Amino acid sequence: MFLFHATKYECPFDCFINMIKGKWRTTIILSLLNGPKRFSQLHRLIGGISPKVLSDNLQILEENHILNRTVYPTIPPTVEYRLTEQGTEFANIIEDINSWAHHYTKID
Amino acid sequence: MFLFHATKYECPFDCFINMIKGKWRTTIILSLLNGPKRFSQLHRLIGGISPKVLSDNLQILEENHILNRTVYPTIPPTVEYRLTEQGTEFANIIEDINSWAHHYTKID
Repeated sequence: MFLFHATKYECPFDCFINMIKGKWRTTIILSLLNGPKRFSQLHRLIGGISPKVLSDNLQILEENHILNRTVYPTIPPTVEYRLTEQGTEFANIIEDINSWAHHYTKID
Repeated sequence: MFLFHATKYECPFDCFINMIKGKWRTTIILSLLNGPKRFSQLHRLIGGISPKVLSDNLQILEENHILNRTVYPTIPPTVEYRLTEQGTEFANIIEDINSWAHHYTKID
């Protein structure tokens, strides 16, 4: 069995599909591929996402070990998100899918 | 836009998800990764798939340039399926997903 977000899947691909589906998940992960970002940076970078949706997605990704969240004791505190090793490998696969799709299935 | 099986997708990941979802699609593609196979070989190799479901999936994959179908003029004719270059790259991504999922999300 394969586990993601407290749900068990028999098939690794069903598990993967549930990790990447949804409007923002892949964009958030790809946005962290070139280095850690603060919440405000991510929110600015990813046009159109609401703070709540960004926060919910970041929490799911953190709970599932795709990224780490570090709070720095500045005033006010600074919160930074960084891909884990697992998350970086995941992001690389997403990037491969993205370039494959652009290369072979893009029609305009 | 991104096109797969006569359907247009705005997002490359939605397109990819629709290419891999379903019980047999990824298994069929991975079965061809180590070389061309005849229909009967695939049917034997992929336990539990009906000839009709195998044939339908192979047709979709052929129409979408993931594999080629070659008919040899033997008696009776022999039909062989082989991944295209596009299909081989696609299969490699699927294999990466499979190993990532087994490495990080497998729970038993």
